[in-house]
Amino acid sequence: MLVLLTNDDGISALGIQELRLAFEPLARVFLVAPDRERSATGHGITMHKPLRVEKKCFGNKSTGYAVSGTPADCVKLALEKLLPERPDLVISGINRGSNLGTDVLYSGTVSAALEAIINGIPSVAISLDFDVLGNFKTAADFATRLAILMLEHPIPQNTLLNVNVPDLKKDEIKGVKATKLGLRRYVNSVEERTDPRGREYYWLGGNIEDISEDDTDLSAVRQQYISITPLHYDLTNYSVIQQIKDWELKLTPYESAGKI
Amino acid sequence: MLVLLTNDDGISALGIQELRLAFEPLARVFLVAPDRERSATGHGITMHKPLRVEKKCFGNKSTGYAVSGTPADCVKLALEKLLPERPDLVISGINRGSNLGTDVLYSGTVSAALEAIINGIPSVAISLDFDVLGNFKTAADFATRLAILMLEHPIPQNTLLNVNVPDLKKDEIKGVKATKLGLRRYVNSVEERTDPRGREYYWLGGNIEDISEDDTDLSAVRQQYISITPLHYDLTNYSVIQQIKDWELKLTPYESAGKI
Repeated sequence: MLVLLTNDDGISALGIQELRLAFEPLARVFLVAPDRERSATGHGITMHKPLRVEKKCFGNKSTGYAVSGTPADCVKLALEKLLPERPDLVISGINRGSNLGTDVLYSGTVSAALEAIINGIPSVAISLDFDVLGNFKTAADFATRLAILMLEHPIPQNTLLNVNVPDLKKDEIKGVKATKLGLRRYVNSVEERTDPRGREYYWLGGNIEDISEDDTDLSAVRQQYISITPLHYDLTNYSVIQQIKDWELKLTPYESAGKI
Repeated sequence: MLVLLTNDDGISALGIQELRLAFEPLARVFLVAPDRERSATGHGITMHKPLRVEKKCFGNKSTGYAVSGTPADCVKLALEKLLPERPDLVISGINRGSNLGTDVLYSGTVSAALEAIINGIPSVAISLDFDVLGNFKTAADFATRLAILMLEHPIPQNTLLNVNVPDLKKDEIKGVKATKLGLRRYVNSVEERTDPRGREYYWLGGNIEDISEDDTDLSAVRQQYISITPLHYDLTNYSVIQQIKDWELKLTPYESAGKI
């Protein structure tokens, strides 16, 4: 069987290479990943310029392609041009840093996995809540276990698994929890500074504020559990559809005597 | 009351300027939008470099800020630094081109509206299914009507409205439908070409294949209706959580005699 690996940290990153080593004994492995780190502009698809692809060899077993695009570009290219056949599974990661809560909306790692399920291929996005240790090996081993389980017990085609692993030694991890997405906000997230020429600039950063109940991915990782969250691509809030139907939806503009 | 306008086509684009003209009679309007088109890399947040902001004046009434970042950056900066107070509503658009079905996952226009609801501010993403006419005026007028309705009838705080308007004259639009997201795939979406120096390159494009039932945004716009889809930021597929809980989730790697 065939496993496609991708990520948004670049094809040489430790995370994807640990995945390769973990999966090589079990499957044919192809790596199709960005040629460099794409975390900052990881999402989206490159439509307005050409993409270059360079073949890479890793060890004796695996073939890789470094792509001058985003993680989602990599999945598209892999499926349509680069792989000898359709993969059985796409794994995106192991990202250096967690992808938890509403942060997944900006995650290149998750976007690659979304691209896979849009095309009907089971996928996993996996991230290490990187702190000091950088224990990608534990996450990679867990990914192989999860891959087997997914192939044995299929989940709906529109759903990927978003996995976050605490950065701990294997025997310090308390277990595995199936979770829902939490809500993560950034407070005081914009710093105003002055450059050496006296011009103002801004830098985004800020303190994380997790608004999280007990059964979320955020709380699971904080409690030193591996978190698995099933995500689908349907953002529809169905409960609101009927509410909108009851509105008086006219095309005419609002003629107001005053202001809103 | 205060309305924040943003987009991913840039602060000078026709769509956002039509919104400004439509909202100026009703509200205090601020424009905080990218300094140029960001459709290609519209999503995501700029974390690894500074952002510049330039003040712009539009007519006698409105103030704008052109930002060297993405639509989501613009919303963050607006809320934390640029606006005199918290806006009552964020409107992102009018995008030149529809944002329908699974395409919303890559949409800078929608990502700005998501950023607003993550921060608890009601928001609308609005797009024109631009064909030939470029009738932004109809979409802008509808946006004012919708804004009033949203303030009169609040929807849940975690939900934005994604609006797509057919590019038709006002009297040719058949009405308004509340819809769910459809599924849009791209088939044969990668073209392989050779550059003038004989090197291969790829270009993403391809033919749209809409897998859409009758009550989706895709079918509504195709049938010449304005589509309103309530979207939330919770991608969790709740029905799968229990399924995963039943798996045997061990940390040990898979010791296989054979291959997957």
